[in-house]
Amino acid sequence: MAKIKNLPENTLERLIIYFKVLDLLEKNKIEAISSEELAKRCGINPAQLRKDLSFVGNLGTKGVGYSVKSLKYNLKKFLGITQEWNLILGGITPLAEYLLQNKALSKAGFYFMAAFDRKEANIGKIINGVSVYSLDQLDYVFKAVKVDIGVITEEETPEIYLEAFLKHNLKAILNLSSVPFFVEDDKIQIENFSFEMSLTKLSFFLKHLA
Amino acid sequence: MAKIKNLPENTLERLIIYFKVLDLLEKNKIEAISSEELAKRCGINPAQLRKDLSFVGNLGTKGVGYSVKSLKYNLKKFLGITQEWNLILGGITPLAEYLLQNKALSKAGFYFMAAFDRKEANIGKIINGVSVYSLDQLDYVFKAVKVDIGVITEEETPEIYLEAFLKHNLKAILNLSSVPFFVEDDKIQIENFSFEMSLTKLSFFLKHLA
Repeated sequence: MAKIKNLPENTLERLIIYFKVLDLLEKNKIEAISSEELAKRCGINPAQLRKDLSFVGNLGTKGVGYSVKSLKYNLKKFLGITQEWNLILGGITPLAEYLLQNKALSKAGFYFMAAFDRKEANIGKIINGVSVYSLDQLDYVFKAVKVDIGVITEEETPEIYLEAFLKHNLKAILNLSSVPFFVEDDKIQIENFSFEMSLTKLSFFLKHLA
Repeated sequence: MAKIKNLPENTLERLIIYFKVLDLLEKNKIEAISSEELAKRCGINPAQLRKDLSFVGNLGTKGVGYSVKSLKYNLKKFLGITQEWNLILGGITPLAEYLLQNKALSKAGFYFMAAFDRKEANIGKIINGVSVYSLDQLDYVFKAVKVDIGVITEEETPEIYLEAFLKHNLKAILNLSSVPFFVEDDKIQIENFSFEMSLTKLSFFLKHLA
């Protein structure tokens, strides 16, 4: 991941973690928390947490700690979670169908607007309210809606979706196929994830250390 | 992720990427590749690639490059992909059902041996050949089969599965719930992933840079 305005990727990941933990604390009706306690809950040392939160603006009060509600709100704003984001899907796979049914994503502000597939039989289907188009119809979809993020789930020819999405000026891609993609362009952000790679990392750990 | 015998986590991730790309090259009947070309396909600079591969043992031949087949084989052995790994699942969710049906994982050597759930109605179900047990039956399952990796997919009480799995001495956890887990124990490895966190990272990039 490219450096975002001097914010290191690891800091960004930790900020998202703080947000998730604060969300949980708020649900459990906890109103204030010290940096030590919050750091402990997040598995991070307190100095690191304070340093990370300085990117967002220093919001703690000495002796009282952080207000859960206001720190959560500030993180939410900083991370862009208050906004809504439009997604398109590349490939109708079991994973795509899972994502289309996933209520947590729309609750978090991520909405699938369209899906694309290369199999004739899938074109025209509607899955949980989302229409499936052929790749020929990309122009039409990009004209009809603002698209923010492309999600690729197809395993056979994921590069076809990547190329088509980048050609239409998409700047953010979540690639869930098992082969990772890289582009040498700071203006484009690709996140690569596969279950297989995560499990391979764990099995490597077991083989060599545990 | 803890440092594995001086192998940095980033190097490990890149080694897995090289393996996946070599696998693709082999499928496309490419027999040899230079470090420059392989590095380019992986989006990495050649010096870094050569440095990474030195962990595995230097296998290239000057002027010829790497044999795709033998480099793939050596990486496979180094990464532990030649082995088979037994998995258990915590929580019967749509994501769990997706994973249980996923043929790519078993093809890569990852086999689900059992699943656990807290809902009475799910206990005793068999999903794609995998039985669903209650958490009371963990002892029984751990006695019956060797378990390597625990995969947590439940959103409501993921910590209950984490605690139960660690109590039974599991050393490797893939946590797919949206709240990440951390433990201060070098002998335990937890990978945290959620679609929501990945999409939040991308939306942050869009908000601040694109």
